Amino acid sequence: MANSKFEYVRNFETQSTLLPSTYIVVRLDGRGFHRISTHYNFAKPNDIRALNLSNAAALNVCRELKDVLVAYGESDEYSFILRRETTLFNRRAEKLISTFVSLYTAHYIALWPKFMTDTPLDFKCIPTFDGRAVCYPTLAIVKDYLSWRFVDTHINNLYNTVFWTLVLKGGMTTTEAEKKLSGTFSADKNEILWKDFGINYNDEPEIFKKGSLIFKGKIRHCDVVKGIDEFFEGCT
Amino acid sequence: MANSKFEYVRNFETQSTLLPSTYIVVRLDGRGFHRISTHYNFAKPNDIRALNLSNAAALNVCRELKDVLVAYGESDEYSFILRRETTLFNRRAEKLISTFVSLYTAHYIALWPKFMTDTPLDFKCIPTFDGRAVCYPTLAIVKDYLSWRFVDTHINNLYNTVFWTLVLKGGMTTTEAEKKLSGTFSADKNEILWKDFGINYNDEPEIFKKGSLIFKGKIRHCDVVKGIDEFFEGCT
Amino acid sequence: MANSKFEYVRNFETQSTLLPSTYIVVRLDGRGFHRISTHYNFAKPNDIRALNLSNAAALNVCRELKDVLVAYGESDEYSFILRRETTLFNRRAEKLISTFVSLYTAHYIALWPKFMTDTPLDFKCIPTFDGRAVCYPTLAIVKDYLSWRFVDTHINNLYNTVFWTLVLKGGMTTTEAEKKLSGTFSADKNEILWKDFGINYNDEPEIFKKGSLIFKGKIRHCDVVKGIDEFFEGCT
Amino acid sequence: MANSKFEYVRNFETQSTLLPSTYIVVRLDGRGFHRISTHYNFAKPNDIRALNLSNAAALNVCRELKDVLVAYGESDEYSFILRRETTLFNRRAEKLISTFVSLYTAHYIALWPKFMTDTPLDFKCIPTFDGRAVCYPTLAIVKDYLSWRFVDTHINNLYNTVFWTLVLKGGMTTTEAEKKLSGTFSADKNEILWKDFGINYNDEPEIFKKGSLIFKGKIRHCDVVKGIDEFFEGCT
Repeated sequence: MANSKFEYVRNFETQSTLLPSTYIVVRLDGRGFHRISTHYNFAKPNDIRALNLSNAAALNVCRELKDVLVAYGESDEYSFILRRETTLFNRRAEKLISTFVSLYTAHYIALWPKFMTDTPLDFKCIPTFDGRAVCYPTLAIVKDYLSWRFVDTHINNLYNTVFWTLVLKGGMTTTEAEKKLSGTFSADKNEILWKDFGINYNDEPEIFKKGSLIFKGKIRHCDVVKGIDEFFEGCT
Repeated sequence: MANSKFEYVRNFETQSTLLPSTYIVVRLDGRGFHRISTHYNFAKPNDIRALNLSNAAALNVCRELKDVLVAYGESDEYSFILRRETTLFNRRAEKLISTFVSLYTAHYIALWPKFMTDTPLDFKCIPTFDGRAVCYPTLAIVKDYLSWRFVDTHINNLYNTVFWTLVLKGGMTTTEAEKKLSGTFSADKNEILWKDFGINYNDEPEIFKKGSLIFKGKIRHCDVVKGIDEFFEGCT
Repeated sequence: MANSKFEYVRNFETQSTLLPSTYIVVRLDGRGFHRISTHYNFAKPNDIRALNLSNAAALNVCRELKDVLVAYGESDEYSFILRRETTLFNRRAEKLISTFVSLYTAHYIALWPKFMTDTPLDFKCIPTFDGRAVCYPTLAIVKDYLSWRFVDTHINNLYNTVFWTLVLKGGMTTTEAEKKLSGTFSADKNEILWKDFGINYNDEPEIFKKGSLIFKGKIRHCDVVKGIDEFFEGCT
Repeated sequence: MANSKFEYVRNFETQSTLLPSTYIVVRLDGRGFHRISTHYNFAKPNDIRALNLSNAAALNVCRELKDVLVAYGESDEYSFILRRETTLFNRRAEKLISTFVSLYTAHYIALWPKFMTDTPLDFKCIPTFDGRAVCYPTLAIVKDYLSWRFVDTHINNLYNTVFWTLVLKGGMTTTEAEKKLSGTFSADKNEILWKDFGINYNDEPEIFKKGSLIFKGKIRHCDVVKGIDEFFEGCT
């Protein structure tokens, strides 16, 4: 409508457009989820309700923003990988970041009562997420991005599984558990689980060990590195 | 923890830091609120429940992010003006934008049932917001920014008030109302309201005419342009 | 050395890093070369001395900045295409742009007396260049970039050749020549040259028709589009 | 003129516009001037010919680019401070940086024979400069920027004066001189000069001690911090 003499302040706005013809990854990270998980008594090391909630929110994001090729989540983070050719929001970084963050947050909060039954939301400790957008110029590198998150899931989950077993079943303090694990390799951690607690890490739930991947509207918990080519079939 | 050979993909991340010692404005805008307001049957031209919801969400944002000097909202948008000296998130644009958007969205959705009673959220039409961050280098210009949003509120609300009066009370189609208002000035619009419908625009609720301003934890509906100096007292 | 209380002003400096693993093109363009070419009486439509000077300067740039894969120049512009993997100046845009511009300008000015004999430099009309840096994510697109400059050379040179023939040999004013060429196609232009002036465009010097390409330290005037694969052999 | 199918590559170009209504400083720095000064046998610690050359080049830049409020140079660097309101090149960073660098380099090289008599330019060691552009939002901060460069000149020149006196007159190696000066304060350095060599630092040439400032088309060597207000008179 009509302009005012103050309208000139619009000239201070800037836009950053992401390089065309690159894969765009929008990654969301929970803000202060250490505090959130304590406040709401999330199960350790993984809270299946929270993971299911996270996946349901991400699934709804993918339903609404069609250019997501594949999405992958673990713990309190979720990555959305967009097609190389996407022109969503004209590839404007602020629009992409804020829209993914807002949609994901909206669904996460709206779905909370459904997944976190008997755990009402507390306005003083409301879950939120920050976001970033990163461009990847080649197919090989964007595959490595996804592999990076998958391998990270494995490393983190093995560590957390042993750590919380030592604390919850082994009676250690968190400091003692941290010290015991310092400098150990995967094999050592597997052995601690097996020898001291009779736990075979392989028997842990797939969603914990492998994270969650959304592809063609379905959630999977699979070896992402092994299956990586499938998710980018037909891409160049 | 341990690094994988895929870790190098982090090198593709970039950060944009907002110019130090400038006022930062984070503005959130409702995404597709035309559709939202139709879907949820928002009252026309203003839905007091939605405005109250919007203000409550913004108030919670201000409570959590302390460097907001003053915030101002109208319709489906909200502006948060940060102190010139703020080092919130090291002034990183993506962090600022995504955190404000996520916090605002989270509170908006969580508060929805409280304000929009008898109007359950529909996952297929969930309210979301996008965001941007703009830097203003001088006090005079950031005051003009706030004045701009206030004057815009006035212009839009006068128009919408007459428009919806013509439609809802005058029985016009939206096209007819649009045509009648095309090219009219404020005085003309006031006269239509008064002569044809006996409505004195001055008697409209302050929250509709003046928007909502959050200052020192309180919400006001005041003449922002006239009172502008108060909100920036002590600022340079 | 010692810091002063003013040192904090460094915090206002920003750096923009170009996306890793993309081809970087630094393109230099003559500033106001219409005026330059008039002032120094450059031959029309092409001044062989100025083109040779331009090539000599570019060759020296390539000798000093080793990561240039291929460079291409025409008229008053020069493009330098860097290897995808280059870490020159840590891929910082300002450094790359300013260094290429400064090196090219320095050699252009220093070599001027050698190529522009009997045409002393006038400080009031000194040749300068501006620069930009552009990232190209795939091999196919960076090839298209180079093809773009080549095709542009052809289009411009054919036009300029006919235009200046009409003016210098045909006695037209520049306005008349412009008008005559308006809306014509390549075939029309070739025919004007041939029918009216007995000039076969194919006989024009290769350097005019094809521009100059620097590859492995040598200057060529070749069909860049046809030979494009050679310049990127081994690249992905 | 005509477009080719390759024209789409232009979409990969980006522009960064500097925040309106801020002071823009373009600073140029000599590239590898340690090597340059050795190669061309610059006098130590200051070569008056090189400083005069640098000033002459900067003066020509200021003559051509009218929005420079004040410029300041020392050693191999020069800062150009633009008016807050400048719209030069629409405040596009790449244009500003590359144009200042190119103009300065062009004049520096073109003026070389006039100032560096008997020292012909060597194409294998040609002086070049890189550049950056920085925004300063307030008058106080841009004054601090200029003060910073001035204080830096003093700190560097005092150090270099003593250092080279120790080497050239005191017969020390550069390593010995460096060691002797390590951890010393200004007073210590002044004393070394006076006691050991009978040199009063105050008697050193003003251009060495104070750098060179260009204001209203004239070069001065003055106490920039003391006189700072004059250079920004009328600015806000």
